Amino acid sequence: MKKRILSGMRPTGRLHLGHLVGALENWVRLQDQYQCYFMVADWHALMSEYEKPQGISEYIIDNVVDWIACGVDPQKARIFVQSQVKEHLELYMFFSMIIPLGLLERCPTYKEQMREITNRDLSTYGFLGYPVLQAADILLYKAEVVPVGEDQLPHLELTRQISRKFNNLYHQEVFPDPKALLTNTQRLLGLDGRKMSKSYNNFIALSEEPQEIRKKVQNMFTDPARVKLTDPGHPDKCNVHSYYGVFAAERKPQINTLCRQAKIGCTECKKDLASRIVSFLAPIQEKRRELLRNKNDILQILAQGRSEVLRVAQETIAQVKDIVGIKEHGI
Amino acid sequence: MKKRILSGMRPTGRLHLGHLVGALENWVRLQDQYQCYFMVADWHALMSEYEKPQGISEYIIDNVVDWIACGVDPQKARIFVQSQVKEHLELYMFFSMIIPLGLLERCPTYKEQMREITNRDLSTYGFLGYPVLQAADILLYKAEVVPVGEDQLPHLELTRQISRKFNNLYHQEVFPDPKALLTNTQRLLGLDGRKMSKSYNNFIALSEEPQEIRKKVQNMFTDPARVKLTDPGHPDKCNVHSYYGVFAAERKPQINTLCRQAKIGCTECKKDLASRIVSFLAPIQEKRRELLRNKNDILQILAQGRSEVLRVAQETIAQVKDIVGIKEHGI
Repeated sequence: MKKRILSGMRPTGRLHLGHLVGALENWVRLQDQYQCYFMVADWHALMSEYEKPQGISEYIIDNVVDWIACGVDPQKARIFVQSQVKEHLELYMFFSMIIPLGLLERCPTYKEQMREITNRDLSTYGFLGYPVLQAADILLYKAEVVPVGEDQLPHLELTRQISRKFNNLYHQEVFPDPKALLTNTQRLLGLDGRKMSKSYNNFIALSEEPQEIRKKVQNMFTDPARVKLTDPGHPDKCNVHSYYGVFAAERKPQINTLCRQAKIGCTECKKDLASRIVSFLAPIQEKRRELLRNKNDILQILAQGRSEVLRVAQETIAQVKDIVGIKEHGI
Repeated sequence: MKKRILSGMRPTGRLHLGHLVGALENWVRLQDQYQCYFMVADWHALMSEYEKPQGISEYIIDNVVDWIACGVDPQKARIFVQSQVKEHLELYMFFSMIIPLGLLERCPTYKEQMREITNRDLSTYGFLGYPVLQAADILLYKAEVVPVGEDQLPHLELTRQISRKFNNLYHQEVFPDPKALLTNTQRLLGLDGRKMSKSYNNFIALSEEPQEIRKKVQNMFTDPARVKLTDPGHPDKCNVHSYYGVFAAERKPQINTLCRQAKIGCTECKKDLASRIVSFLAPIQEKRRELLRNKNDILQILAQGRSEVLRVAQETIAQVKDIVGIKEHGI
């Protein structure tokens, strides 16, 4: 039987090229090899967006549309919304009770975020429990594999600690020890050379209008050492050039040569790249428009996904309640 | 319309005389004046008992039987089990996100418990959130009144802070500002003169066998200044005497006089008290036995209570989700 994978995204904004390259392309590959559970992590979104949560509801649908437009297949993967399966919170509560406070306070990701995120108040009780909810997400479905980036490894380690502690405390092998699947994805920086992120506003959305794409690409930084058109360029140090690798690999060697020989200017090079990104996104955006015309189908997909994962979730919770001793008493 | 009250008990053991005098007699009075929601707080029980939770399931039924045997009327009050209404956890999650961590860490009750409870590990994430779950319990039903002892006032203050913060953050008057109903109950110490508590094993259970009651009362401390039978006693300093006030008020003045005049010995006095407690509990225990013969009726009462409170709970959660922006999308 195929192993089960859980992965999710927080519906905090429109998805962009970074999501496609960093996660979605990977999801599409994984859905053939694994039993995939892809989750819209709206509770997790709310943990950081609680002060201005108004967009979350809209992005839930918008993001799922992008997933499917990029090739995630609801026939192969289960697609669902976290908050629509209340069992996540039940398992979260069971785990909250057994996890030492200090372990959460010392989590490197937590300390980093508390240091770096200054434009919103995250010194809340809920935000400290972020990785506990992640553990519940994963273990509710007894997922054996979790695709993660390097930066998420500490959270997965916490999930494993919770899993082991639960099993030890109640003397039963209820939960697996989920393994990290380190994804070897291409790295795509933001338009300004920093990490591509909604909060830096340095991204191209998957649903970006062609005109807007051309404008954004035209504003990208290029090789700073190339001052005049006649100066030879250094494509290996140029962010624009690295985009070629992702969106027009076949054209990259040629551009490389032309740039080194000062036979193509940056404006022309970026114009060319923009066109290639527009073409790259065209079928995705066409699929997107088609999906949005039948929004009820998306709701139907989410309802179907929910009902499929719900069965597994309810089984796990029944087992946990039985072990811990909060029985349902047949009510 | 009658105001709504929420109150609850943690199913961590058999109920004892302290529960009767401190809470249940009050509940019975309240159920005529208020719309009463009486909750078996099993999640709260689990927060401290997670290491050995095996009894909780049994005590859920056992305690509800005692409530009803003592006069709580399922026709007047709604009786339900916390974990059977998942909406408690949803509201808990919404509140977790807006409550500052520091407010919980500085809660006097929390600091006191961390200092005093040494026989179990309560340095968990969940235990820190104890008052957040209490706030969710109360506000899920928009209860306007909460019967509390003095020691619970800081928790209720936290509930009010959460209620106000939510209303302010989302610019709507969703939750009330619940008021404390300080209950003027008689104070009943444990058999050894300390607070009556399961953990001190200094209690008489409501379901205690008569023989056991006689033995326990006979072992109570009396006036230490009265050494010989012929010494006059000091009934106002005697724990046994204060029990007369609760369980045989009509006999108290007479015992007071006899004791001062050294006309009754402690053994005889305690024998008399034990008989009065046995008689006092007899109808309760009779009702208890009757209820336990039809355990299905209890399950029926809990199912009925659940379905009644569930409607209110679902309304509140729908309202909150709508305001915060995690919509149900008709799924």
